[in-house]
Amino acid sequence: MNTQASHLVPTIALRDIPAALIDALKSRFSAQCSTALAVREQHGRDESSFEAPPPAAVVFAQSTQDVVDAVKLAGKFNVPVIPFGVGTSLEGHLLAVQGGISIDVSGMNQVLSINAEDLTVTVQPGVTRKQLNEAVKSTGLFFPIDPGADATLGGMSATRASGTNAVRYGTMRENVLALEVVTASGEIIRTGTRARKSSAGYDLTRLLVGSEGTLGVITEVTVKLYPLPEAISAAICSFPSIEAAVRCTIQIIQLGIPIARVELIDGKTMRMVNAYAKLALREEPLLLMEFHGSPASVKEQAEMVQEIASEFGGNAFEWATTPEERTRLWTARHNAYFAAIQSKPGCRAISTDTCVPISRLADCLLDSVTEADASGIPYFLLGHVGDGNFHFGYLIDPAKPEEREIAEKLNHSLVARALRLGGTCTGEHGIGLHKMDFLIAETGVGAIDMMRSIKRALDPQNIMNPGKIFAL
Amino acid sequence: MNTQASHLVPTIALRDIPAALIDALKSRFSAQCSTALAVREQHGRDESSFEAPPPAAVVFAQSTQDVVDAVKLAGKFNVPVIPFGVGTSLEGHLLAVQGGISIDVSGMNQVLSINAEDLTVTVQPGVTRKQLNEAVKSTGLFFPIDPGADATLGGMSATRASGTNAVRYGTMRENVLALEVVTASGEIIRTGTRARKSSAGYDLTRLLVGSEGTLGVITEVTVKLYPLPEAISAAICSFPSIEAAVRCTIQIIQLGIPIARVELIDGKTMRMVNAYAKLALREEPLLLMEFHGSPASVKEQAEMVQEIASEFGGNAFEWATTPEERTRLWTARHNAYFAAIQSKPGCRAISTDTCVPISRLADCLLDSVTEADASGIPYFLLGHVGDGNFHFGYLIDPAKPEEREIAEKLNHSLVARALRLGGTCTGEHGIGLHKMDFLIAETGVGAIDMMRSIKRALDPQNIMNPGKIFAL
Repeated sequence: MNTQASHLVPTIALRDIPAALIDALKSRFSAQCSTALAVREQHGRDESSFEAPPPAAVVFAQSTQDVVDAVKLAGKFNVPVIPFGVGTSLEGHLLAVQGGISIDVSGMNQVLSINAEDLTVTVQPGVTRKQLNEAVKSTGLFFPIDPGADATLGGMSATRASGTNAVRYGTMRENVLALEVVTASGEIIRTGTRARKSSAGYDLTRLLVGSEGTLGVITEVTVKLYPLPEAISAAICSFPSIEAAVRCTIQIIQLGIPIARVELIDGKTMRMVNAYAKLALREEPLLLMEFHGSPASVKEQAEMVQEIASEFGGNAFEWATTPEERTRLWTARHNAYFAAIQSKPGCRAISTDTCVPISRLADCLLDSVTEADASGIPYFLLGHVGDGNFHFGYLIDPAKPEEREIAEKLNHSLVARALRLGGTCTGEHGIGLHKMDFLIAETGVGAIDMMRSIKRALDPQNIMNPGKIFAL
Repeated sequence: MNTQASHLVPTIALRDIPAALIDALKSRFSAQCSTALAVREQHGRDESSFEAPPPAAVVFAQSTQDVVDAVKLAGKFNVPVIPFGVGTSLEGHLLAVQGGISIDVSGMNQVLSINAEDLTVTVQPGVTRKQLNEAVKSTGLFFPIDPGADATLGGMSATRASGTNAVRYGTMRENVLALEVVTASGEIIRTGTRARKSSAGYDLTRLLVGSEGTLGVITEVTVKLYPLPEAISAAICSFPSIEAAVRCTIQIIQLGIPIARVELIDGKTMRMVNAYAKLALREEPLLLMEFHGSPASVKEQAEMVQEIASEFGGNAFEWATTPEERTRLWTARHNAYFAAIQSKPGCRAISTDTCVPISRLADCLLDSVTEADASGIPYFLLGHVGDGNFHFGYLIDPAKPEEREIAEKLNHSLVARALRLGGTCTGEHGIGLHKMDFLIAETGVGAIDMMRSIKRALDPQNIMNPGKIFAL
């Protein structure tokens, strides 16, 4: 595995961007195409700490036909195409590492059809999850996938995102029913239907979900919705140690309690959150939990979990039952990243994303805490622990390469541990630029070769977001 | 769409089977390789009504290495390979329509590792679902996917099977975590891990689940298990009409009640079941339901569903609470197919498998009942109605081509209706030989082309179960 890490992406093979392509784009798209440096730079980065030269142009697509025309022009000139939503990816997915043009689909933000009776909704790819939930609010339904950031449905599909509700409602893998996609040749294809299940041929929907823009540009997404639970209760429970909180979580999952959210935050991270959000929550390892169901079922779940928590030294639950209290709680959780960044001015976070079988969670997490503590690098620690997924964010000074090196060593060691324990290098962030070597270690050369064969077959010119997931 | 249907598969392009291949197989596999006609014939058919010449030889694989060696020999001689479990597929998946050899994996029937703490189990592909549930019984866990037949886990993965529990627990799509697969070139690859979620590259697991043996031979399957519910109750509720039963189901689903099973059987089918199983159940449209959860939650679910049922004229539930009563109930359901076959001596069933969004279920089903009644062909009608999936089985006399023609016309009309309503031609049986034209109508030429490109890239010789899903 590559333990090297540099601020600049190491293997850039920039392709020529012919002036004729830019002319053709300007002619086709007029004001919808920009070559202004500020616009290009904004589209040439994401939330990762990687840097690369920006794309040569940005096309602001307003329709599937816009995407088709942009992809066809790019193909004609053999130039890469990088789909862009709102730029919240974390692994360098959006960087134009081989040059190319960015196709910004954030303007394709219409909710196309809400089928409340079927619990499905079809949206354009630029619709964000908050916008979606606002749009379906009056139907009594909601879309549960919540990666923290207000990401677009297109981006969430492309990275197979999940987040805090996945323990109960699954990830984008389970929740995308159908897609419309523009392929590398500029064809529009449809995959899946609104039926709940199907055995109709290859599961192209799930091949495209998580393909990180390397197989096509997603132009329409149909996802499942869920009835808003009759009752929702959120609770905080503090524990004497991270281990106690983790072991409590393991038992909740093993007993099959249908908890909707179970998030770990460690004491140090809580200190950052309190300072940032001017809160006074306990600065101890906490589980933030949420229970969904009928009033009776929520009560029953909460009682069972309180009993388990007590066995592990957990304190009495502090409840957040009104929507406002719950919003405050989850906002604090979602702001942990920003709180951590603010705790060390000028720092960048190098975020990990391992996910292991639940029985291995304590082993994987605790050894990594020990290593991180010994390193002297400050960090935040958050976990979607019900799924066995957690994130360290190592807070490094970008001006100090030695800090980055330590952080990458910690990450390397953590991933190696997770793989030994039967887990994955990425639970929800994707491979992007950062985890290509980890992917090989995880899945083996044979599976990577299969992925490469598929990529070559579907994108023979290698123009769809090249240089991500694997080297071709 | 092709409305033609013939007993013999129409487009057979048999490839040469060199004697040198048979010699090489006999030399490598000795008694594990058979060319006896009876053995070949048994491996050259499934539960469908299609017929084709049998495979030239059957290899009884005992290990992944056996599969590798058989596939490599087949590849060397450019001869098709057809994986075989226990032969319960319904769409001609197992027929050697281009000639070739059958690889029987039913002897690879070891449960390799039960990870009760993680709710996962890894098995060889020949393990059947009943064998699996027997093996994990002592752990307090179970594997819910139940397609009726005691199919193998390999076969269930290959066809993306589901069945009566899918409404709550999902299908093989949601429940397979990881695979070991022998590719067309004889390489062994691994996809997925035991972690509950992952964003690590292309979702090869889900590409292979449902690929019907056309991309590789599955040699190991890791699936999710679930805690046996603390309480299980099954109930029968009869309704004045199919429409009332269907509308009741729609409301149960739209309210998000976590019902574990909700199966429709129509009155005519119940008459067949009663005659076959010497039962005295009401010969009216019935919903067979099952509720899983804590005792309180099961009670609550049942009360809510009883209330909904009453609104639609449903009678008071008849309960089956002991394991024996439940087994009798579900055995009656699973035997409906055989009961129907027995009701018309010498008949074959042509089974449909459409699945539509739940709001369209009544429209789709009722119009199809009207058409079937008008046709004069006897039929059975069963539905996994909670998923919008149902099966007509048209009972035809194989000696009367006109009956087959009527049945295929009914099927054609039903599929066209389901597609118009946003559904799929196959909820769980797969495409096989029978639904290739329907697949094109459903997904469009673009998506089929993408499937074909993947197939050509991963199996350039087209030796893996060729002639299924799509024509190459």
